[in-house]
Amino acid sequence: MTLHYYEALARPAQPRGCVLVTGSNRGIGLELVRQLAASPWPPHHIFATCRHPEGPRGKALRDLAAQHPSIKLVQLDTVNVPSIQGAVRAVDSHLKDQGLNLLINNAGVSSHATLHSLDSQEMLSVFATNVVGTLQVTKVRVELLAKGAGKEGLSCSRAAVINVSTKLGSIGLCLGVLQAPMYPYRASKAAQNMVTRCLAVELQEKGILCAAIHPGWVKTDMGTEEAPLMVEHSVRGILTVLASLSQDTSGTFLDWEGNSLPW
Amino acid sequence: MTLHYYEALARPAQPRGCVLVTGSNRGIGLELVRQLAASPWPPHHIFATCRHPEGPRGKALRDLAAQHPSIKLVQLDTVNVPSIQGAVRAVDSHLKDQGLNLLINNAGVSSHATLHSLDSQEMLSVFATNVVGTLQVTKVRVELLAKGAGKEGLSCSRAAVINVSTKLGSIGLCLGVLQAPMYPYRASKAAQNMVTRCLAVELQEKGILCAAIHPGWVKTDMGTEEAPLMVEHSVRGILTVLASLSQDTSGTFLDWEGNSLPW
Ligand SMILES: NC(=O)c1ccc[n+]([C@@H]2O[C@H](COP(=O)([O-])OP(=O)(O)OC[C@H]3O[C@@H](n4cnc5c(N)ncnc54)[C@H](OP(=O)(O)O)[C@@H]3O)[C@@H](O)[C@H]2O)c1
Ligand SMILES: NC(=O)c1ccc[n+]([C@@H]2O[C@H](COP(=O)([O-])OP(=O)(O)OC[C@H]3O[C@@H](n4cnc5c(N)ncnc54)[C@H](OP(=O)(O)O)[C@@H]3O)[C@@H](O)[C@H]2O)c1
Repeated sequence: MTLHYYEALARPAQPRGCVLVTGSNRGIGLELVRQLAASPWPPHHIFATCRHPEGPRGKALRDLAAQHPSIKLVQLDTVNVPSIQGAVRAVDSHLKDQGLNLLINNAGVSSHATLHSLDSQEMLSVFATNVVGTLQVTKVRVELLAKGAGKEGLSCSRAAVINVSTKLGSIGLCLGVLQAPMYPYRASKAAQNMVTRCLAVELQEKGILCAAIHPGWVKTDMGTEEAPLMVEHSVRGILTVLASLSQDTSGTFLDWEGNSLPW
Repeated sequence: MTLHYYEALARPAQPRGCVLVTGSNRGIGLELVRQLAASPWPPHHIFATCRHPEGPRGKALRDLAAQHPSIKLVQLDTVNVPSIQGAVRAVDSHLKDQGLNLLINNAGVSSHATLHSLDSQEMLSVFATNVVGTLQVTKVRVELLAKGAGKEGLSCSRAAVINVSTKLGSIGLCLGVLQAPMYPYRASKAAQNMVTRCLAVELQEKGILCAAIHPGWVKTDMGTEEAPLMVEHSVRGILTVLASLSQDTSGTFLDWEGNSLPW
């Protein structure tokens, strides 16, 4: 299956979609919004959410939104429940009676703590963003996603929750522990993967697909300049994989090239 | 391999061992201490730790300790760093120059939160006990465990960290989500499994074995009366499995009968 996400959207039987992305002011989130908006068949609404849409950290996103009327900037801090609820109201006011089709839980934080440098509060704050935030944002979106869902199988242009995960969160691979222990980050992403699988089971009956995607090691603030992959390339891959997802791949863990990863 | 843990201890080439168990005032932890102490070859010291050794919650453990001089009661709240450090001093004062051979991270809390009833603070507090607590208790014990380690391969009577996990923490199995969503508990135990695997890789060079054990569904306050397994039976199984662990099974996830579980 090689249809890109926005090619899939353009197929007449499918809605053109409304998409929400968290952490979209920089890195992978910003590029997701950029590629979605620049596509030949952009989604109706792209809710580009971030913690500080007004401040200097929101500048690149504001500049992008100025070029694309489909982009709506929405304040959303995934660890702040009142902010999550404020974002619900802002999104609702645009959607009116439409459903939401795709929620991309991309916001995330890293941590380089080793066993030796481990700090309890820091570890909990990584869990708060990468696991609790993902779940809280999803929880309040379930009914809107169910509205977007079709009757004939699962897909990302109907109703889907995509959680941006990482290969470092694969317990089975347990990659490069001695080079990069990163206990809090790895543990949080394994926990997030569990959340993805459970959501896939629970939301299936509402017609909502759910999957975990590893974007590759990408040149962003988090990935650093050392990373081999350009963010444009990673996001192009992610969007192509999203277009290929179906009932059969709901609840799986795939990388940006569509390869399956072990839990 | 059918040697029970204390039969393995009795083999002449092996130390008789010093063991520390967290959350040992009730449930599986209390039974671990009971069976270890009642064995024909009890460990030299059994550090039976719990949050409130003096109060009513510590009574069963105090009664048990009164019958077995090998049991030393030590206060240890796994989410409280000063308490963890206090326990280090208490244990050191008994061990003098001996190492510690076996650390069983058994303390844990459950949570029945569904997607709908999810509360951020409650979820973080489950992570604090089940993941951060496990890691913080292990961190301060690594040097003592390394002292107990031998040169000729890994085993639980030399130096080991055993994390009590659960089948509900298996992302691959993702058992019974619709019957028992339990997002915080499942996510925390998946995260704890990641910690187990990373510790196994990192601590191997110090001669320390590390594994995750699922005790079965056991009649305890957490498991409830509905559980099919008596705690005596589960713990007998766990101790037999511990005796069988070696270099080859470090970093694995086994149940109380020695069956391997997927991550
Ligand atoms: N880069 C890689 O190589 C790589 C590899 C594997 C997985 N990933 C995953 O990909 C995702 C995006 O990473 P990235 O490389 O783009 O990272 P990044 O450049 O560091 O950007 C992280 C984004 O998440 C946002 N964020 C953090 N906490 C937030 C919160 N509480 N509420 C809302 N937004 C929040 C940040 O917003 P602020 O600007 O406000 O901080 C920023 O927009 C993450 O989930 C990460 O774990 C990245
Ligand atoms: N029972 C089952 O069916 C089952 C199945 C799979 C896995 N498990 C796992 O087995 C382990 C033991 O469970 P159980 O059935 O014996 O549970 P339990 O009867 O509820 O006992 C839990 C124990 O953990 C202690 N604890 C909790 N938080 C603590 C903290 N911060 N510091 C120190 N101790 C703490 C409790 O102490 P207090 O008395 O002070 O609260 C108690 O001793 C847990 O890790 C659990 O996840 C149990």
